[in-house]
Amino acid sequence: MRELLRLPVGERIALSSYDASATPGGPAGKAAGLAAAAAHGPALADLQERLYAASTAGERRRMLLVLQGMDTSGKGGTVKHVIGQFNPSGCRIRAFKAPTPEERGHPFLWRITKALPEPGEIGIFDRSHYEDVLIARVRELAPRAELERRYAEIDAFEKSLTEDGVTIVKVFLHLSYEEQRSRLLERLDNPEKHWKFNPGDITERAVWPEYQEAYEIALERCSTDAAPWHLVPADRKWYRNWAVSTLLLEHLEELDPQYPKADFDVAECRRQLLTQ
Amino acid sequence: MRELLRLPVGERIALSSYDASATPGGPAGKAAGLAAAAAHGPALADLQERLYAASTAGERRRMLLVLQGMDTSGKGGTVKHVIGQFNPSGCRIRAFKAPTPEERGHPFLWRITKALPEPGEIGIFDRSHYEDVLIARVRELAPRAELERRYAEIDAFEKSLTEDGVTIVKVFLHLSYEEQRSRLLERLDNPEKHWKFNPGDITERAVWPEYQEAYEIALERCSTDAAPWHLVPADRKWYRNWAVSTLLLEHLEELDPQYPKADFDVAECRRQLLTQ
Repeated sequence: MRELLRLPVGERIALSSYDASATPGGPAGKAAGLAAAAAHGPALADLQERLYAASTAGERRRMLLVLQGMDTSGKGGTVKHVIGQFNPSGCRIRAFKAPTPEERGHPFLWRITKALPEPGEIGIFDRSHYEDVLIARVRELAPRAELERRYAEIDAFEKSLTEDGVTIVKVFLHLSYEEQRSRLLERLDNPEKHWKFNPGDITERAVWPEYQEAYEIALERCSTDAAPWHLVPADRKWYRNWAVSTLLLEHLEELDPQYPKADFDVAECRRQLLTQ
Repeated sequence: MRELLRLPVGERIALSSYDASATPGGPAGKAAGLAAAAAHGPALADLQERLYAASTAGERRRMLLVLQGMDTSGKGGTVKHVIGQFNPSGCRIRAFKAPTPEERGHPFLWRITKALPEPGEIGIFDRSHYEDVLIARVRELAPRAELERRYAEIDAFEKSLTEDGVTIVKVFLHLSYEEQRSRLLERLDNPEKHWKFNPGDITERAVWPEYQEAYEIALERCSTDAAPWHLVPADRKWYRNWAVSTLLLEHLEELDPQYPKADFDVAECRRQLLTQ
């Protein structure tokens, strides 16, 4: 799946050439997809425990899932359903909103650095430093020259993270314009979902093409060998969950974390316990 | 269950009079207990979402679960199994270890304050400020006069939290001396659990009576009307999970959080979306 969903490095991609309702490599339908995603649960939890256990012996490896996508593309749903399969104590989740005044007073990576996973943890970013080249580009929140610098800064930042043991899994949830309309209407039609709706969502939707272009540029400039982007078609929620959980599973399997060996005398401890 | 497990306010309790393998108010055995705990899942997740939704409209209410208990009493297991039923994005989990040099340079509540849940969130403390009157008392890490002050300080701190909308659910996982031995031996017998074992656990176990006494004092001084302690017999893991999830459920049901009403013109937003 990693190869299938990974975007090419250093090439401009046309988002319009990707079908958001496709299910590349996926199970043969919703029922099979739900079952397959649920079946990942035990393996994900086991690998997470091993990763955490290894950190107690000094290993610095950890994972960082970066979720990006338009409103309603399913970033929150992915956290709920996919990350919900892990032991919550080993997850460090951060949803990035518009920067606070304090955050705006610092370089854009400042708040990101503070939210990184510790060794052994799985970090999850619901939005991320990419907002600083996405909404910042569309809404001209920074001078163009500054924006241009940020792509290289992001690449260097992510490379330094990978060198410090962070496996970065970047996922762009690719949603269609029509599916977004349908999901926004769904929120309006259900009073229990009104809290998820923001009239600002309509304002952002009005500049959909500008966002698609900003994404295309970011995906081109920041798909690197160290930290490639993956494009997950997101019109079908079951496929999105299955695909992201598969990506995490494959990356964790590659890490192949091992329980550390005891650094104490097991027999002696047992003897003491039996007489205590 | 709250009434059954809640400790009396202002009374010294004798932990030895509580059977750690009891199952007060619980289902009739392990199978029924596991099923009953799992059945709480949907209601817990629903109430959590409502609590979070209400916070988006300015409500400050939130919940804080404080877990205390001897080594192996199941604090981590409770987080995994009970908190694992919630949407992880609304949980703020913090495991408190021995204070860092920076933390030691601040008043003992400093690091606690930084880890509190935000409005709408469910906070979970695996160990807490109570360590500062437990291990601190047993190991004489602070002058006695300072320790004595801390109980009142904790009570005032917790009262101020409840006045700011925090529902504090304090749970003491009551484990027996024999069950701890058996759980520590289990960790020694399984190489995949060696990472959970620390020879220091034996040192702490050697002063078991001192810890029991320190707990009895803390439970007496800090069981208040605003934030009472609950004693959960913890020798049976299925009962522990069932009891803690029941406590959380009852507290959330009492909060009865409601989805907020829309503060925008729903019909107008729908119209715009349909023509956009």
